[in-house]
Amino acid sequence: MKQRKIIIAIADGVGDRPIKALEGLTPLQLAKAPHLDRIAREGVTGMMDPLFPGIPVGTDMGHLILFGNDPKLYPGRGPIEAAGVGLTLQAGDIAFRCNFAYRDANGIIVDRRAGRIRQGTQEIAQELEGLMVEDVEVHFSPATEHRAVLVLSGPGLSPAVSDTDPKAPNDGVAYKPAQALEDSPSARKTARILNQVLEIAYERFSSHPVNLDRQAAGLYPANFIITRGAGMMTDFQPLCQEFGYQAAVVAREDTVLGMGRLSAMTVITDDRLTGNVDTDPELKADLALQALKTHDLVYAHIKAPDVMGHDNQPLGKIQAIEVFDRMVGRILAGLDDQTYIALVADHSTPCEKGEHSGEPVPIAVWGPSIRQDMVSHYDEIDCSRGGLGRLTGREFLFSLLDLANWVKKQGN
Amino acid sequence: MKQRKIIIAIADGVGDRPIKALEGLTPLQLAKAPHLDRIAREGVTGMMDPLFPGIPVGTDMGHLILFGNDPKLYPGRGPIEAAGVGLTLQAGDIAFRCNFAYRDANGIIVDRRAGRIRQGTQEIAQELEGLMVEDVEVHFSPATEHRAVLVLSGPGLSPAVSDTDPKAPNDGVAYKPAQALEDSPSARKTARILNQVLEIAYERFSSHPVNLDRQAAGLYPANFIITRGAGMMTDFQPLCQEFGYQAAVVAREDTVLGMGRLSAMTVITDDRLTGNVDTDPELKADLALQALKTHDLVYAHIKAPDVMGHDNQPLGKIQAIEVFDRMVGRILAGLDDQTYIALVADHSTPCEKGEHSGEPVPIAVWGPSIRQDMVSHYDEIDCSRGGLGRLTGREFLFSLLDLANWVKKQGN
Repeated sequence: MKQRKIIIAIADGVGDRPIKALEGLTPLQLAKAPHLDRIAREGVTGMMDPLFPGIPVGTDMGHLILFGNDPKLYPGRGPIEAAGVGLTLQAGDIAFRCNFAYRDANGIIVDRRAGRIRQGTQEIAQELEGLMVEDVEVHFSPATEHRAVLVLSGPGLSPAVSDTDPKAPNDGVAYKPAQALEDSPSARKTARILNQVLEIAYERFSSHPVNLDRQAAGLYPANFIITRGAGMMTDFQPLCQEFGYQAAVVAREDTVLGMGRLSAMTVITDDRLTGNVDTDPELKADLALQALKTHDLVYAHIKAPDVMGHDNQPLGKIQAIEVFDRMVGRILAGLDDQTYIALVADHSTPCEKGEHSGEPVPIAVWGPSIRQDMVSHYDEIDCSRGGLGRLTGREFLFSLLDLANWVKKQGN
Repeated sequence: MKQRKIIIAIADGVGDRPIKALEGLTPLQLAKAPHLDRIAREGVTGMMDPLFPGIPVGTDMGHLILFGNDPKLYPGRGPIEAAGVGLTLQAGDIAFRCNFAYRDANGIIVDRRAGRIRQGTQEIAQELEGLMVEDVEVHFSPATEHRAVLVLSGPGLSPAVSDTDPKAPNDGVAYKPAQALEDSPSARKTARILNQVLEIAYERFSSHPVNLDRQAAGLYPANFIITRGAGMMTDFQPLCQEFGYQAAVVAREDTVLGMGRLSAMTVITDDRLTGNVDTDPELKADLALQALKTHDLVYAHIKAPDVMGHDNQPLGKIQAIEVFDRMVGRILAGLDDQTYIALVADHSTPCEKGEHSGEPVPIAVWGPSIRQDMVSHYDEIDCSRGGLGRLTGREFLFSLLDLANWVKKQGN
């Protein structure tokens, strides 16, 4: 355990633009957030570009960076979704996003979503448990509703294989077996094994009691898997391994939890948490403070600001910020004088755009021996005059870790 | 066409240093430029290093970056001059800056500038039209006075060939055929073909009526070509292609227009424009607004501030800034509420230095939903406290494109 510790509070998508309906202010400017403002006033502030000025990032990429990974190691959607449903990945594993589907005996995909199946997918998925094809281990895990994730783990695989999902709105077309997308032994091997896995799934799923029951009830059976978005897990070397600190993340969202797993962090969640404004910020704070007893760095994530940005709800976003402020206030009350707290976001989600933008997000750090600046309000405008200036996500993370004296010297 | 649009107004070389003769102020601080100041006051400002802090760049490099290209793809002077005179280049083409010269039968370069020929070069150049040497196509185009550009287009060429120009002040020395500067088939092929082109030019130019007339009038004939500055055209992949927007540039200077051509932009010029303070800024504004009807991004370039910086004319530079301000004012008056306007320069040209410097230039952006800062004057001092902080040229361009919602998300 380190002598100094850090809590990073993440307000997902909190950055915004001035909004006419808010008289030209941003939600952060207008929200009543006394704890965020206290951190800005007593600490040091600045602006952060998660990846590069002007480039929007996804929640996965934003957290990949905040969790201490080189953005060049972004592995694509498949591995991130796999980690999100709790699968463990090794470098070189190939992961696919999947649907359960209903296929007939002629290979026609009658329904890409197997009648939007919601129940019994866990039991059906069990049929592939422990499956080995050649020297490749197969892992298959359901996600929400008809969605699932498939992982192939073994030597000499490649993500260069075609999608077998005919994609919406193409119900009623024949399933196309996977093909190698490049002329390499690894791509050919991956396509061959994937096709065998899909045929085995068809055979085993078709006779599964859940599917027999569905057919008896006039529902489409979930007797097949269609795949898309193949991605190869990269060799993550998160900073927690390089600098020898223990990290944890408290969140509810699968993407964030999955990225935490990929980053060698402890992931902490609770059924009483939600991914919206009705979450329990006090519980989240308590879980974070609890985790701090056994970890050096704890992330506490609130999803609601991003949801409100996507939905173009400026007033909802203000409410979400106030929920975030409650969490931060409870954390502040429980901190000792050797712990830093930082405010950050993974990206901006301006209400008017309803999508992520590449504008920088405000950052603030509070704790022992901080080079305090003149900024007294945590928002996109005031923090642009802050003492930290404008940093990338990776630069900001290094700056934080260094405040706690964890970063190794370069040179001598 | 995009929903939101952008105009970028470029004041070439406008950045300066405090000048004693101006009581310690810069030309931008002293100029009466109400429209530039309005953009600073109602928008967001900052400072921009075109390439890297402290590294001066040329007009070509500065515009290469502003026009959305990776600075690593800078192809050298030859290709840029070739594009400047209207030649179309492909990746892999080799371009040379040339002089028309007068050579005698013994290979002595009697005059490197062919008596500073001004008339008839277009007709002489026609002699090489359609020339093929081996599998290489030859393009040759006159520029101003005795200058010209030669392009070799074909497979397996290299820029690693020696100059055939003996360089000033070496009139009266023998012409040296081009040699390969590295031991490669492509360098040897390029030298061999170049030498054949030069001999063919000597043969054809010598008997050209323009030259026979010059000799009859006691003038040196332009019967030869000498070459320097070989450069290979790189594989430009400008952002307009990556993000699918249509761009145009309104300018008079050949270098800027050529860089626009290389960057897949529409180039717009007019004989009534000049490269100095006597240009017509209202016409330039009208051409830019006109271009905006059929393009998403329009650049409007004014050369005069750079000229005055090179000539160490602080008062002239103030006048040039006021010309720029007139252009910007006219543009502002014609904008709708979905268009951004940005102020920028390609580099600083401090009067006291009379050359480009590596100091950053002020930037400002005005338009819908801007994170307005506290800066109210467009100059090198005030904008250093602006909300954008300090960005490279590429970072600034991405930030602008992202404001208009054109930049693709990284991750998901």
